[in-house]
Order: sequence, then structure tokens, then C-alpha cells
Amino acid sequence: MLDGLILSIDAMGGDNAPDIVVKGIEYFLKHEGKNRRARFLLHGDEAILTPLLAKYKQTAARSEIRHTDIEISMDEKPSQALRKGKGSSMWNTIEAIKAGEANVAVSAGNTGALMAIAKIRLRNKQGAQRPPLAASWPNPNGMGVVLDVGANIDCDAAQLTEFAVLGEAYFRALYKVEKPRIGLLNVGSEEGKGNDVVKSAHERLSQSELDMNYIGYVEGNDISTGGADVFVTDGFTGNVALKTAEGTAKLIGTYFSAALKSGAWSKFTAFLNGVALRKLKKQIDPRKVNGAVLLGLKGIVVKSHGGTDHVGFANALNVAIGLAESNFIEETERSLEALHDEDDNIGFIA
Amino acid sequence: MLDGLILSIDAMGGDNAPDIVVKGIEYFLKHEGKNRRARFLLHGDEAILTPLLAKYKQTAARSEIRHTDIEISMDEKPSQALRKGKGSSMWNTIEAIKAGEANVAVSAGNTGALMAIAKIRLRNKQGAQRPPLAASWPNPNGMGVVLDVGANIDCDAAQLTEFAVLGEAYFRALYKVEKPRIGLLNVGSEEGKGNDVVKSAHERLSQSELDMNYIGYVEGNDISTGGADVFVTDGFTGNVALKTAEGTAKLIGTYFSAALKSGAWSKFTAFLNGVALRKLKKQIDPRKVNGAVLLGLKGIVVKSHGGTDHVGFANALNVAIGLAESNFIEETERSLEALHDEDDNIGFIA
Repeated sequence: MLDGLILSIDAMGGDNAPDIVVKGIEYFLKHEGKNRRARFLLHGDEAILTPLLAKYKQTAARSEIRHTDIEISMDEKPSQALRKGKGSSMWNTIEAIKAGEANVAVSAGNTGALMAIAKIRLRNKQGAQRPPLAASWPNPNGMGVVLDVGANIDCDAAQLTEFAVLGEAYFRALYKVEKPRIGLLNVGSEEGKGNDVVKSAHERLSQSELDMNYIGYVEGNDISTGGADVFVTDGFTGNVALKTAEGTAKLIGTYFSAALKSGAWSKFTAFLNGVALRKLKKQIDPRKVNGAVLLGLKGIVVKSHGGTDHVGFANALNVAIGLAESNFIEETERSLEALHDEDDNIGFIA
Repeated sequence: MLDGLILSIDAMGGDNAPDIVVKGIEYFLKHEGKNRRARFLLHGDEAILTPLLAKYKQTAARSEIRHTDIEISMDEKPSQALRKGKGSSMWNTIEAIKAGEANVAVSAGNTGALMAIAKIRLRNKQGAQRPPLAASWPNPNGMGVVLDVGANIDCDAAQLTEFAVLGEAYFRALYKVEKPRIGLLNVGSEEGKGNDVVKSAHERLSQSELDMNYIGYVEGNDISTGGADVFVTDGFTGNVALKTAEGTAKLIGTYFSAALKSGAWSKFTAFLNGVALRKLKKQIDPRKVNGAVLLGLKGIVVKSHGGTDHVGFANALNVAIGLAESNFIEETERSLEALHDEDDNIGFIA
């Protein structure tokens, strides 16, 4: 029985778990989550979590510890995690949403292990063939979604087409845009550019009668300038692109801090710490886009960066809540069904 | 006979040619090129270039127009450019360095056409199998080089290995670092990550006795944070990564300008226009990294962004001059010879 939203949390996942996980929940409850009735299932070691919760009153009041002393380490291989991970904090985090005890799962743990466990436990016949990981990235119009950002390294045209359908459903559910612009990431926008997989996916998407707003090829710069709402690509390219964008934002943040401390600037720092500067700092803060989502499963799984801090983890909780309150699962199922019907009709082989 | 450096310029190449080309040369001569003895061969339509040069006195004094009324358009396919492009401004720009009339060629024209013509005219048996395009990108330590950024969309492990060797020679010649750190772009830094091509290139680079400073896998964020000096990747991934970085820098520049104009900030704009702010603006100005170089040919070919302005074009001239004054061609030949010897010895098949 769900009374308000329940988040299933892998309390032991991440470089600085469980500290930043619990601190992140507290931060969320004091900020964006202030007026939410959200509650939390914390999967992890009771002996560590109980004293930690004593320090974070709001979190303690809303949480229930689900004890396990099994953990999946950050460098464990996905195959090992599947063999030995049963009953671990990560496994139980996923299991709770499968059992209907929680609405959404969040983990900052080992990405490969999380994807493997989520796929084994939450994939069904109507779901995605190879669930992609989708991440949000800001642009002057708001937010865009890039997928796959690392779940599937090698992709064929059928998978890229499926990513387009899943990305559309995700964007529509999260940002309430009826017909988001779907772009296929390529090295140029002209016909004839790209490798065979991209060209074949382009042909398929152009000819599809799924009534998506497919706008054709887009390029790397479009991700930050807003040239599309959904950027479809394989997990290798998407991972490199997103990390490159994050690195660039970090570099410019460094320049910015250095400039603020240098020479004439420092004299005005007091004035500069006004609304505009705080807004600017927030805009280029990579923690504010933390939280990628595994699409096409029977359940919502949010992956936080392993190295994030409590502010970043709180943002992943935001993403999770936004999705849990949306009709994302239904949207996805409807879209996938239409795609699979079309696949059957045209006998599409990648 | 070369008296000082001579640059062979495709005056008609680029979205805003020949205006920004000639204005770019003038800008270069007034700034970074102030104390240079550089001269210019301008390939293009005399009837357009002569009145343009009348407006730019310094450029006029250092330039010689090489007339042609043939142009390669920005959307021409490489195959068409090869068939119909003989005698065009771009073709003649390349031909002049082949003939020894100039030290380096610069064009802001059609990238595919430029690569095709340069390869046909300047590749020799000792050169690179598939010349990659190398671009520079800033990091807190200075500059890094990413290659390939778009010349070869599909690459095998042997090509990635060749890119590593070429990138090392390029970085050493341009930035005077004896043993630059060579990284292979991947989705994670752990062994076992990536696709088959990347894994095979990693194995080859790890076992090579070429005495390179190969540091293994690097990720997208390392490009801007300086995790390596040379980033090796295929032309698809490299193109997306670099354009993503450019787009991100542009986005943050937009945020920055908006913040400067808003509320309290505007009152201090006069003060803020000090040294630090100008330096910061320069640091995040994508024009300052304009100028990619085609490696592994018998001659130096610099590609400017087609859509850049005069400041960007001037930076491409800077890159060209730096390379022309270096021992880049000799470095490259020596490195490629060593690589090809090793290939022969180990019978390496990609």
C-alpha cells in the first residue's frame, strides 16, 4: 500500500556512501522536497545507518532501514554482481520496486552492476530489448535528454530506433511536451554523413509512421545549444559526449572562480555575490544535472553519479520523484507497443 | 625561394568568404602576427579580392592574389570536389604547398573536399594510411589535442594506433613537450571497458616498444580537465566530443553574458571590464581554439571552421605559423617510420 511516494534507496552505493546518501536525503527534504510526503526505504547496514540517521532528524522520521550487510563494490564486474549480489543493498533496492513496496529505485553504486540487476529483475517481454541510460543536460530553452549515455556500447539501427521511442516517452512524461524534437547524433547534418548504423537508423526514423517529431541529424554542439529535445546515440558516443560536456562546465567553473579571486574582482566580490552570480553558479553546476534513468523497464531506476556529493544525490532524488509522479511507465509501454507493431509489419532487421 | 614564411590561403572557402578571410589576415597582422614576416598567397577571384584588399592595407602589402574563378561550394560532396575541383581556390591552395611555393595551407572551406584534395595531392607512401584531423582544446595546464575529430568515421585498431603516433609528434612539435601523455578515449578507465576496436588498440599501445608515454584509457571529462595531452579516438566520437565541448562553452558564455546584464551586475559592468573579465572571456571563446590540422601528409594543411569570423580565422593562421616554424613534418616522418617498422615486425593486423 502506497501512501504518498516511496523511494527505495541503495544506502551503501557510491564512493562516499552511506554518508552522502543520508545527507542527500536530508538536503532534499529541506529544499526541493520540503512539501513532499515522500518516504524512504534505506537498504544497507543497520549498524552503520542507525547512528547516521540520529544526525539527520528529518530523514530519520521518513525512513525505514532494510538491513543487509552485503554490498556490491564499485569495481565489481556486472557478471560477478549477478552471481554474488543477491540480497545486497543494490539488489534489494531494485527488488522493492518489483515487489510494489516502493515507486522508484535510486542508487549511486556501480553502474554496470545496477544495470545488470535492473535488467534481470525488471525487464519483461513488452519492454526494451536493450534498456538505455538517459541523462538530462541544460540548454537555453530548458533541458534536453541524451541517450544512451553508457548502457550499450555497441548499438545497431533497431536499438537506436528504440532509443528514440523511449527518449520521446521519457521527455514527454518528464517535461510535459507533447511532441519533443528527436535528433540523431551525427558528425554533420547533411544526408550521407555518418557511419552505416547511423544512416540506417536515420532511414528508419524518417520513414516511420509512429508520428514522432523526428528532426534528422544533429551535432554535438546542439546538445548544449538546444538543437533538439532528445539526442539519440549509442552508449559509447553518448557517454563520451556527456562526460565531455561535464568536463567543459567544470573547466569553465575553474576559470570563473580564478577570475573572481584575481585582482580587481576580489574587491567587488561582496557585491557580486548577488542573485545573478548565484544563478550563474547554479547554471554551470554539474551536480544539478545528476541523475540518469534506465529506460524501458517495468519500474523506474535512477542512477546517481558514484562520486557526487549530497547536493548531487538530492538532485537524483528530484529526478526520481518527478518520474514517479509522471505517467512515464504507461507512456513507455504505449510507445514500445506501437514500435514493435511497426517492426513486425515492416519486418525490420537491423 | 622562401623568404620568411609564406601561407597559402583559400580566400574563397567558408560561409563568409572572402570577407572574413581577408579581415582575418589583417587582424592577425595587427595582433599575434605583428612582428612576423609572413606573406600570403590568396587564391580566389581577383575581381572580388582586389577591391577587398584596398580596404585592408597591411594585408595588401603582404599578399599576392592567385586568380581563379572556380570555387568548391560548402555542400559539394568530396567525390564531386575531386572530379570538378581542379583549379579551384581550394585545390590551388593545396597545390602551392606541394610545389614548394608556400609553407602551409589554410582553408575555411568544405571539410570533406579539403581532406579529399589534400590526401590526393599530399599523401605519400611513408605517410599516414588515413590522415586524421587534430584539434586543440584548452585545459587548466594549457592545451590538449584531440584526434581524429572527423576525417575518418570508422576506424580500426591499427588506425587508432597510428593516430596515437601522429598525435604525439604533433603535440611535441607544437607545444615542445618531449613525452606528451597519450590517452585512449573510452567510456571508463578500467580494463575491460569499451568496444572491441578500443580494446585491441589499447592492447597494441600497451605492448608497443615505441617509447610513447601511453597512459591508457581516458574519459570525456579528461579532455577539459587535462587528464591527458593527446586524446586518441575515431572520427565519429572525436567530432561529437569536440562539438559538444564547443557547444557547452557557448552555452556558458550565454549564461555569463545574461548574468552580466542582469540586475545588480549591470551597475558594476564598468569595473568588471577589467583584466580578469577580459581574460575569462578569452578563455571561454571558442574562436581561440579554431584551426584543426590534417596529420600525416607531406605538407601542413590547417582547416578553419567554416562559420568562424575574422578573429577565429586569425587563430587558424596562428596555428599554421606555429606548425610551419616547428619540425612537425620531420617528427611525423620519424615516428611513422618507427611505427611501420614495428608493424612489419609483429605482423600486426587490425
